[in-house]
Order: sequence, then C-alpha cells, then structure tokens
Amino acid sequence: MANLPRKNKKSRPSSKVSAKSEPTTAWVRVPLESEVPQEVQVLFGKFREKTGFVPNVARNFALMPEHFMRWFRYYDFLMRSEPGQLSRKEREMIAVVVSAANQCEYCLASHSAYLREVSDPVLPEVLAANYRRAHLSPRERALCDFALEMTLDSARMTPSNLQMLRSLGLSDEAILEAAQVAAMFNFTNRLANALGWVPNEIYYSQGREPL
Amino acid sequence: MANLPRKNKKSRPSSKVSAKSEPTTAWVRVPLESEVPQEVQVLFGKFREKTGFVPNVARNFALMPEHFMRWFRYYDFLMRSEPGQLSRKEREMIAVVVSAANQCEYCLASHSAYLREVSDPVLPEVLAANYRRAHLSPRERALCDFALEMTLDSARMTPSNLQMLRSLGLSDEAILEAAQVAAMFNFTNRLANALGWVPNEIYYSQGREPL
Repeated sequence: MANLPRKNKKSRPSSKVSAKSEPTTAWVRVPLESEVPQEVQVLFGKFREKTGFVPNVARNFALMPEHFMRWFRYYDFLMRSEPGQLSRKEREMIAVVVSAANQCEYCLASHSAYLREVSDPVLPEVLAANYRRAHLSPRERALCDFALEMTLDSARMTPSNLQMLRSLGLSDEAILEAAQVAAMFNFTNRLANALGWVPNEIYYSQGREPL
Repeated sequence: MANLPRKNKKSRPSSKVSAKSEPTTAWVRVPLESEVPQEVQVLFGKFREKTGFVPNVARNFALMPEHFMRWFRYYDFLMRSEPGQLSRKEREMIAVVVSAANQCEYCLASHSAYLREVSDPVLPEVLAANYRRAHLSPRERALCDFALEMTLDSARMTPSNLQMLRSLGLSDEAILEAAQVAAMFNFTNRLANALGWVPNEIYYSQGREPL
C-alpha cells in the first residue's frame, strides 16, 4: 500500500473515545448505542460476548437499523454457516483477495484477522500482497483467481472461467457460494470506502500468534 | 455496447422452453421449480401474481434457497420500501448507472424496465449511454456521480465526495441508502456476469409506452 494514494490524513476521523460519545468511525453520523433499536442492541451484546467488542461496521451501518439487520442476516449466514460449500478459510481468503484488490482498509483489517484465526498469522498478508505467491492448494488458487476476475472485470467472464473450478471438483452450489462471497466483498468494500469506515484497532493484533 | 466485446454467442444458454424443463438461464444449474422449498415457491407465486412471470434472478439464485431468501429480504427492502430516503426513481437510476458501468446484461435489462415504469420510456437508455447527457435534477445528477465513483474507484473517495450530496440537502441516512444501492448493484452485477444470468425477454418490452 505504501506507494498507493492514501486518504487525506486530515479527513480521517479521530479514533479517540470520549466518555460522552462513541468514537467517530465514519464520514457519516454514527448512532449512539442507546439510540439503536432493541434488536440491534441485543446483537451488539452478542458481539461483545463472543469477541469482546462491537465491530465498527455494525455501529456504522446501524444508522439504518432495519437495513443493517436484513443485510447482516444474509452476510452472516453466507460467511459463517457450517458446513458451507466452501470452508471458512476459503471464504475468508476470498474476502481478503477481493478487499485487497479494492483497497478496502476496513475489510482487509477485519477479514485478515478472521482469516488468521482459521489459518496462520502470515497468510492474509501474502494474499493481500499477491495471492499468486502464497502456498495455496489448486482449489484455493482457483477460487482466488475466480474472485479476482469477478472483482476486476466480470463483464468479460465466460463459462471457461467456471471450468477450472469444475475440474477441481467444485459443484455448481460451491461455485454459486464462491461467487456470492466475491460479490459480497465488492459490496462491503464499496460501502466502507465511500463512507470512510475505520476498522477497530484490535483487528490488527488479533490472531498474530501461531495456532 | 456495439463496440464492446460480447459474450461468446455459442456459450449463451438457449432460452427455448421445453415442456419438460425450465429454460436454461445461467451457466450453472438452474433448479426446477418443483425442487425448491415451499417458501421459495410461495415467493415465485407472488412474482407471478404481481407481474405475470418469475424473474430469472430468482430461479437462478434459488439453487441455494436459504442464501437466496436472505439476500432477497434485504434487496427487496432496500429497493422497494416506501417511503425510502430516496425515491424509487432515484434508486432505480442508481441501479441502471452502476449496471451500465459494469456492463451487466441482466441488471440493465431488468432495472431499465423498472425505471421506465416509474419515469419514462427513454430515460434508462440515456442513463446507460451517458447519464451526464440526461435531463436530471441536481440531486439526481449528484446521486449518479456518487454511484459511479463508488463503482469505478471507491478507494480514492474522500469526504469531499459526500459534500455535493449534503449541499443538496441529503441527510446522512439518505447518503447511506444511496451507498447501499450502488454497492448492491456492484454485488448483483458481478453475480450475473460471472454466472451468465440471462434476463427474461419480457423486460425489454416493459414500460415502452409513455406513462
């Protein structure tokens, strides 16, 4: 990222927490936790119970709570349901490869952390730099190729883009799941980039110890 | 579109309907209507009641019915809820501008039809060709600019990209809704392009008469 244009430092919201207000983690208003509907507060409680904190994506998106909950019910099922057609590691690899291609600070930080938790402390950074240099199985490599093609130039795709996945034994359902994950991060990356979402700092330290 | 590369004609699924099977509308398997769960069949029934046909996106996506329903509950609320922060016309305009930029045959056909129904028979084609030539209000123009920026280069966006929307009176909630719509079509365009989704032919004739 060093040689790529950075967001203007001055425009970056402060991450300082004051006693009276939530930290500012977006270029649009972030609702106070006390403002959001009960259903969203319950979800925030579940996040805290499970991980110790509320992801900023949830705080930010909760400005429109009904939209947020409907999106979350789909997103969470897509990424976390077990068994999926793809492993959790494969889904998080796609998240990282797509988020790197779209230069999404938020999703790269958060999904690198999730991927470290199901793989190793190094893999996400290699994937983000250039996934072709990572030690991947043929199936993982084909999934990354497919996700990148969808991200950069989906209009030129043909049935041949599916052939490699099929030849490695992926079912049509698995291909549809992979396509949804790649498409999902093209959605979240754009929301995060357009609205200046800042990731929770804690993501950068999660999963740094070898499994 | 005439000078841009087309999908290989030979790889295009046939749209012929046989008595025994559903038409093939994707490069992955499309489930028979009799195969999909009750909940999805009920939704198909509602589509037929309202418009006379089942959109191919629903047939195709129903290969993974639980994923499809979760996505649809979000998508439908985002695009159709009334009152939205944006008008239905504004939401459909964003859909068309983003789908044109991503060269998505499916979404351009379907959302041009939806936009014709809430505007006029000509607007979608002008938007798809070059929205800067369409007769737009300053607010509509700013929404199209914002959606295109999100589509083409979201990583370079700064708070200044939100200023034009704010100066025209859009609230933070309206900006978040616009961003979700632009992001959503970056999701659906990629699914449709990567999986070879073919739009229902009827879209091309819908809403051709002046209101």
